[in-house]
Amino acid sequence: MDYAARREELWRRARERGLDAFLVINVEHSDGANLRYLTGFSGSTGGLIVGAQPLFVTDSRYTEQAGHEVVGLPIEETTPRWLPWLADKLGALGVKRVGIGAHRTSVYVFQELARLAPGIEFVPQAGMVEDLRRVKSGEEIERIAAAARLTDEGLRWIVDRLAPGLRERDVALDLEVWYRRNGAHGVAFDLIVASGPGSAMPHYRPGERTIERGDLVLFDIGARVDGYCADLTRVVAVGEPGRDARDIYRIVLEANRTGLAAVRAGVAGKDVDLAARDVIVRAGHGDRFGHGLGHGVGLEVHEGPGVGPASEDVLAPGNVVTIEPGIYLPGRFGIRIEDLVAVTADGVRVLSSFPKDELLVL
Amino acid sequence: MDYAARREELWRRARERGLDAFLVINVEHSDGANLRYLTGFSGSTGGLIVGAQPLFVTDSRYTEQAGHEVVGLPIEETTPRWLPWLADKLGALGVKRVGIGAHRTSVYVFQELARLAPGIEFVPQAGMVEDLRRVKSGEEIERIAAAARLTDEGLRWIVDRLAPGLRERDVALDLEVWYRRNGAHGVAFDLIVASGPGSAMPHYRPGERTIERGDLVLFDIGARVDGYCADLTRVVAVGEPGRDARDIYRIVLEANRTGLAAVRAGVAGKDVDLAARDVIVRAGHGDRFGHGLGHGVGLEVHEGPGVGPASEDVLAPGNVVTIEPGIYLPGRFGIRIEDLVAVTADGVRVLSSFPKDELLVL
Repeated sequence: MDYAARREELWRRARERGLDAFLVINVEHSDGANLRYLTGFSGSTGGLIVGAQPLFVTDSRYTEQAGHEVVGLPIEETTPRWLPWLADKLGALGVKRVGIGAHRTSVYVFQELARLAPGIEFVPQAGMVEDLRRVKSGEEIERIAAAARLTDEGLRWIVDRLAPGLRERDVALDLEVWYRRNGAHGVAFDLIVASGPGSAMPHYRPGERTIERGDLVLFDIGARVDGYCADLTRVVAVGEPGRDARDIYRIVLEANRTGLAAVRAGVAGKDVDLAARDVIVRAGHGDRFGHGLGHGVGLEVHEGPGVGPASEDVLAPGNVVTIEPGIYLPGRFGIRIEDLVAVTADGVRVLSSFPKDELLVL
Repeated sequence: MDYAARREELWRRARERGLDAFLVINVEHSDGANLRYLTGFSGSTGGLIVGAQPLFVTDSRYTEQAGHEVVGLPIEETTPRWLPWLADKLGALGVKRVGIGAHRTSVYVFQELARLAPGIEFVPQAGMVEDLRRVKSGEEIERIAAAARLTDEGLRWIVDRLAPGLRERDVALDLEVWYRRNGAHGVAFDLIVASGPGSAMPHYRPGERTIERGDLVLFDIGARVDGYCADLTRVVAVGEPGRDARDIYRIVLEANRTGLAAVRAGVAGKDVDLAARDVIVRAGHGDRFGHGLGHGVGLEVHEGPGVGPASEDVLAPGNVVTIEPGIYLPGRFGIRIEDLVAVTADGVRVLSSFPKDELLVL
């Protein structure tokens, strides 16, 4: 990964906005993805000053780790009182207008820095690093594709073992362990295994419920490989499903395909949402699809661009997004079909490969 | 858990500060612990308005989950555009001065709310909910004690299986799986298993390294039970350790005991740190103990009160803190001994029970 080029581009954009430095502060994972994107550092606490004299800072717990991970940048160790140390350092650098990420900086840090460095103006910038992260390099897309392949393989592995009598949470744990033993560095989020009526809760967490014959089981899962996330949803039936489940599955599948077909560079995220949503609305289930169609995926499982009704984003080559329409019938069942897709210069590359053409019946 | 009483107390303190509402916004876990503390809600996204008419809000992904978890509060579903919805709602409530957590609210959310609701003053409040959380109820301490017991048991289980040839990350994964199969709802943080020179990095992450005979192996581990965290560090020797390791162990053990003996209601966190640190300084290793002595533990593994050199906190009954001195010799080895302890009205209750009197040799 060319971290130096990313910092250069950020620095270029910062100068365009009249800033003479840009500050990234990650304390206890508050801005971990942006810091990792710009430096390779994967610890919980560290900071970066981007400017004429870029500088990586961390505390004594992480200086050795930073020495391994952070290449091409001077590394300085802060005192335990981070903010006064940073204010002094910025003062010594002589900078006057410092950009700081608006989404991942707390009001407390912002106000403290302003108080400690009264000669410096801190200027909140919404999404400067996040905007860079939206457009993935080829190397990043390969990592996401690798995470997606592993996610597909794990689902195949667990589906072959799925049977009535298993507890949801045991299934989820078995799958997570499989991922971590087979090349994942973790999971992209808490894996969702939702059976029966639980599948009607879009963000259900696997619990004590035991899978029964006749259940639909929804898997919303993702492995994390080299920091990059995958995100996949499939629903399988344990035993013969009812006719209504098959009908709903077909509608959601059509919405999924319609959404995928609408993904193209230059198209607005909300128009992709609208195309897929329209399928569900026309089938009479518009009020049963309460979430956005999709979201960007990368170092975080939810990042830009947005693919929902409220999104202002326009898709561009290098974006990686989910397309995940769903219909949820409370107390009964829910069906969602989610694929991960990379936007290319002339179309799309679908990164998810687990079959979806029919409701899989076990 | 008496969530209503917690909200009442927060509301009382808010009124004392001239506020007519207090707003908690948790978006993608940004303020999950505070929201859970006040409502029981454990999803990734939701909000709470504390005031004359308290109200829980979430989006359609979580309304069903909130219906199960959030008791005694009206629940309203937001539109996908959270912030305009919230601004309208606060306007309809007629509130004028709204407190908002300074540590967990982003600059973006703060500025957007101010823009969308120009008639309302949003007043950043540092640590109002966090201050409440510092003083645990008996029920909370029992949950932390249960997490600590499970953490101890898991360490016993894994130590009995520790042997040269095992990879650090496999050991860490086996231990995590053991916790999750034996009553934990997860781990409190990524478990640390650091062998040989890795033990000299206080926040090392388990990697490909294989444990060798003659290694020290540092475990910094914690199970999570019913939302509450444990935190424990022990070092064991695989094969006969060198004399220097035994010497350093004795110094760290004395610092640990000195720290524990200094814990008492009414004592400043920094004085507890100083007492333990002094043991290490007098032994000539002051510059090898670069982190604070400890921190509070609860719904988060790092919370108040602080027990470090920069802490302004004074210990009070109901606090639960770690005492974890360490000495790190870069490139060679590190030793840290960490216990979890509850401050009581007349002393302390040490929640960690894994033996520490001698360096355990396997």
